[in-house]
Amino acid sequence: MAGRTTRRRVLRITVPGGQREPGSGERADLLAAEEPLGIRVGGQALAMTMRTPGDDLDLAAGFLVSEGIVRAPGDITQMIICTGERCGHSISNGASGTAGPHEGAGNIADVTLRPGLAVAPEQRRAFLTSSACGVCGKASIEELAVTAPWDLSADSVPVSPAVLAGLPDALRAAQRVFDATGGLHAAGLFTAGGELLAVREDVGRHNAVDKIVGWALRSGRLPLSGCVLMVSGRASFELVQKAVLAGIPVLAAVSAPSSLAADLAEQSGLTLVGFLRGQSMNVYSVPERVLAGAADLAGR
Amino acid sequence: MAGRTTRRRVLRITVPGGQREPGSGERADLLAAEEPLGIRVGGQALAMTMRTPGDDLDLAAGFLVSEGIVRAPGDITQMIICTGERCGHSISNGASGTAGPHEGAGNIADVTLRPGLAVAPEQRRAFLTSSACGVCGKASIEELAVTAPWDLSADSVPVSPAVLAGLPDALRAAQRVFDATGGLHAAGLFTAGGELLAVREDVGRHNAVDKIVGWALRSGRLPLSGCVLMVSGRASFELVQKAVLAGIPVLAAVSAPSSLAADLAEQSGLTLVGFLRGQSMNVYSVPERVLAGAADLAGR
Repeated sequence: MAGRTTRRRVLRITVPGGQREPGSGERADLLAAEEPLGIRVGGQALAMTMRTPGDDLDLAAGFLVSEGIVRAPGDITQMIICTGERCGHSISNGASGTAGPHEGAGNIADVTLRPGLAVAPEQRRAFLTSSACGVCGKASIEELAVTAPWDLSADSVPVSPAVLAGLPDALRAAQRVFDATGGLHAAGLFTAGGELLAVREDVGRHNAVDKIVGWALRSGRLPLSGCVLMVSGRASFELVQKAVLAGIPVLAAVSAPSSLAADLAEQSGLTLVGFLRGQSMNVYSVPERVLAGAADLAGR
Repeated sequence: MAGRTTRRRVLRITVPGGQREPGSGERADLLAAEEPLGIRVGGQALAMTMRTPGDDLDLAAGFLVSEGIVRAPGDITQMIICTGERCGHSISNGASGTAGPHEGAGNIADVTLRPGLAVAPEQRRAFLTSSACGVCGKASIEELAVTAPWDLSADSVPVSPAVLAGLPDALRAAQRVFDATGGLHAAGLFTAGGELLAVREDVGRHNAVDKIVGWALRSGRLPLSGCVLMVSGRASFELVQKAVLAGIPVLAAVSAPSSLAADLAEQSGLTLVGFLRGQSMNVYSVPERVLAGAADLAGR
């Protein structure tokens, strides 16, 4: 398995008229690593994702939570990162794969579910197997409503706008690989008081969130009641789905949400905050948690 | 099919200490639309992507190019956007679906390939069906080398750094939905002289590129020799793959590339430019095209 960054020679060019001296020259640059990770369940391929190596068992576990396949630590009886062609090398809980006999070693996570739990055909990327003509956002939302194991509306945790306003800086401060490469997305899990519980970085935002959720599953923390998930970039339908299936009541993003993200958040009882920049933010759904925490706005 | 944006009531909050007046209030906000699009080939589901509605036939066609399934306009004999349960409503070439009988109508693209052309099992998301332990970046690159129908190394188009430096502003100026929503990725296809040929926006960067590639396929422009593809955000393996399979010799991104993106670009003969900001840029692979176009840097 590769590391999280790789070093590479690049040609740096500055054209005339810029602030720096024009010219060009070679220099070394650190790039965020990207490698495929295959996820297998019961020996059968389920998904492949391009990810930044590291926390791969968390990524696989979180992916299974996000797909509605598992929800408790006991749902997974074994997780293996393949380190050989026979794929038989088990590794201890929590650790990622180490060096294997060939280059691809460490890029397959093989998951065994508890007896009685299986991946139903309709759970294997539902839309892929659907032949219905009527695939639409509404159907996606309704399907999730059936799958979601937690009732977010029962989680009335108040979250102060002042705490939310501090999260982007806290997330950025916790990003290590970004500082080195300038090129990674991040997801951070916070308490409603703003305490950082976990941060993960990845070339894919969805992977960063899956790594958080998988860590939470494996440490027995699901549902993540009373927590706030902060993501770099935008809030898509997929990210809201992952938050809902992990029982997270508040999702905050630096940039804009999509329409379907806001719709799903509203119908799932999730508070969706977007454009969280400086001291301002937009609340797209279930504003009650933020209003309840807005003592500092009282009377204004 | 929904439009490209939707209007929504949001709660805008500013906490004390910010530049604006603290307080909160409701206002209307435009969100970028996101809806699933199912892609079927020969009546069989191939993929599902969350996309911003619009240019859906281009998106489906470009996806098939990016997967190495088609490469010429004649490879696709018919494309239908489903507008009813029977999925039998053909629409004219180039237009997107219009209103249908139910909400999901317009969210499935059904593609018929020419006789003799089929989606091989190994082409259906190769990694998903692979049971090999050795999935790795190197294997991904080697597989693509077999699939790629164009020889990028034969395309020696010179590209001036000054032209490259102007592309981010040109792309941003051409983005319509971003201005309204602040939340969309964009891909722009330019000539080596900096002339804009096409721009597409989407909640997903990969979709924006597929829409460009599909438009090029359907208008008989593949391979896109002598062209530069400019993308907002980062350059991932997937985006380089799409550029290579469309025969585009130069890919430029505002932000960082991943390690595998740079490796694939190098081995495919594609010039990969990253951190294209202001008057500066990094060239990660095949710098010859940029150096050949750098008359304005001569002698410095």
